[in-house]
Amino acid sequence: MLIVFTGNGKGKTTAALGCAMRALGQGKRVLMIQFIKGDWESGENKFVKHFMLHASCFRIIPAGKGFVNPIRNNISNGVKISGDKIRFSVHKKAAEKALRLAKKEIKSKKWDLIILDEINVAINLKLIKADEVLKILKYAPKNIDIILTGRNAAEKFIKYADLVTEMREIKHPFQKGQMAKKGIEF
Amino acid sequence: MLIVFTGNGKGKTTAALGCAMRALGQGKRVLMIQFIKGDWESGENKFVKHFMLHASCFRIIPAGKGFVNPIRNNISNGVKISGDKIRFSVHKKAAEKALRLAKKEIKSKKWDLIILDEINVAINLKLIKADEVLKILKYAPKNIDIILTGRNAAEKFIKYADLVTEMREIKHPFQKGQMAKKGIEF
Repeated sequence: MLIVFTGNGKGKTTAALGCAMRALGQGKRVLMIQFIKGDWESGENKFVKHFMLHASCFRIIPAGKGFVNPIRNNISNGVKISGDKIRFSVHKKAAEKALRLAKKEIKSKKWDLIILDEINVAINLKLIKADEVLKILKYAPKNIDIILTGRNAAEKFIKYADLVTEMREIKHPFQKGQMAKKGIEF
Repeated sequence: MLIVFTGNGKGKTTAALGCAMRALGQGKRVLMIQFIKGDWESGENKFVKHFMLHASCFRIIPAGKGFVNPIRNNISNGVKISGDKIRFSVHKKAAEKALRLAKKEIKSKKWDLIILDEINVAINLKLIKADEVLKILKYAPKNIDIILTGRNAAEKFIKYADLVTEMREIKHPFQKGQMAKKGIEF
């Protein structure tokens, strides 16, 4: 089963984590590969460390290099326009490595649920290609569930998916200039 | 901070559970009161039982009486039209009790995050009143976060909330007549 959580509102990665919790409760094994998040520890990473370290059924792998700054990297709407090739290439290599890891883990049959977190963002930023991801999804064993998160999911993912929810922002504290809140946003 | 996850798509309770995971990772204490779910154990309940039983920082209380069947209870669009008073009143009493519990727990300051799961559904079914809930929310200590879930959130909740996401169904296996999947839907 392929699930896509997309849209501009809060709740995409969060819902994937909720699915993880449910799946774990049902005795399943869950892997999350974070395509954007790097070493910086957010709530979910700390959760695994504090509560699930001795349970081999849940792993989160931060495989990104942190938030890609479109201005610093001269990327506009996901299109790299000029300069600063080093930093962009670092992000690109990390995303490509994450995708190879995803392919390996999907094939391994070690997991019942695999979350490819913010993979849509990595595609929008042209770090990896939607077609490469789709090929991996099409060859995935039928009995594993895969969740893709991130805004602006590729149309071909939506077509191929079994379940798609758009998280639509109705209201967000960011609109009023408030910062992300610990334990809610990260 | 008041958060509302509403809409007709999958991901509302699920996102609330993801918030719970993040909050727990950040050392916070989390309570979920389920307004509709009863004794029947879903993934999240089993998760607490298997992984968090000795951690007092996470509790899920199933305070409902199971899914309210609008046909069996002669409820149409949340309006009870006739007959079968017993069963409706059982649901109503359970929801009212859940709301009293919510009020007590919010006041207790024992929790950093309180999730009132499917409370919007309980309101739509006329089991409890939105105004009663709003009064409790307005008197809640400022430092606790509260999440309301369920479709068709009351407009007054949306107005009062800090963060609102509408989970919009783009595609769902139910549309093709498939059943809810264990570890994903429950």
